[in-house]
Amino acid sequence: MTISLEPIGWVRREEGTPTSPDELASRPARIELAPRFREGLSRISPGDELLVLFWMDRADRGRLLVHPRGDVRRPLRGVFATRSPHRPNPIGATTVRVIRVDQERGILEVEGLDALDGTPVLDLKATDPHFDRGAP
Amino acid sequence: MTISLEPIGWVRREEGTPTSPDELASRPARIELAPRFREGLSRISPGDELLVLFWMDRADRGRLLVHPRGDVRRPLRGVFATRSPHRPNPIGATTVRVIRVDQERGILEVEGLDALDGTPVLDLKATDPHFDRGAP
Repeated sequence: MTISLEPIGWVRREEGTPTSPDELASRPARIELAPRFREGLSRISPGDELLVLFWMDRADRGRLLVHPRGDVRRPLRGVFATRSPHRPNPIGATTVRVIRVDQERGILEVEGLDALDGTPVLDLKATDPHFDRGAP
Repeated sequence: MTISLEPIGWVRREEGTPTSPDELASRPARIELAPRFREGLSRISPGDELLVLFWMDRADRGRLLVHPRGDVRRPLRGVFATRSPHRPNPIGATTVRVIRVDQERGILEVEGLDALDGTPVLDLKATDPHFDRGAP
């Protein structure tokens, strides 16, 4: 069984942005939606929290055991017990804060996103206490 | 650009389990991993919190505007401002609690999962305050 996804948009970063997860998350990022998905941004406002699902297209999909944070002094763990980007279906999931929305041009500016420039975006969701730990 | 995913496993429910999200989340569920992904469960323990990503294979992928919770008295919102299962890439994301793990047989029992019987599972991740709102 194979499941097919099409990106709804892409992450855009300023040239020269450092690529460590912490550096990425500390700088605002832009998400540009493909034209046919822009209507889905309706009623998103600055200040909203969103869960962003994205496709970590530079990940190694063959690993099942990893050293947490790539630190070989830490014992190997199953990938499903970690947040390693390297996993069979490398879907990133990060909660961000919306800074700006331009629905007409399909642009969201967010803070807290640890995704590289050019990363395909798969989905955006409102946070909700029924599904997310600790959401308001 | 098309992205291909392969399920790592499937959700199994007792026959006759009610199918509303609240009823599903209130009953334990079993996740059965395909044999070749079982090693990825290493070091998951009862009591752990996991973010489960799953493929909502009965969703309508053509909608961009929805009435929240299907209530037509509530104004239409962009799907990306909701948790509706109906969205272009219908990936469910729910934080669950692990009740039991059998790594050898590839079985996880969890509570809090709002997924139907037979739902393909795409990924499991440790919760982490760097990525998830309010994680410990």
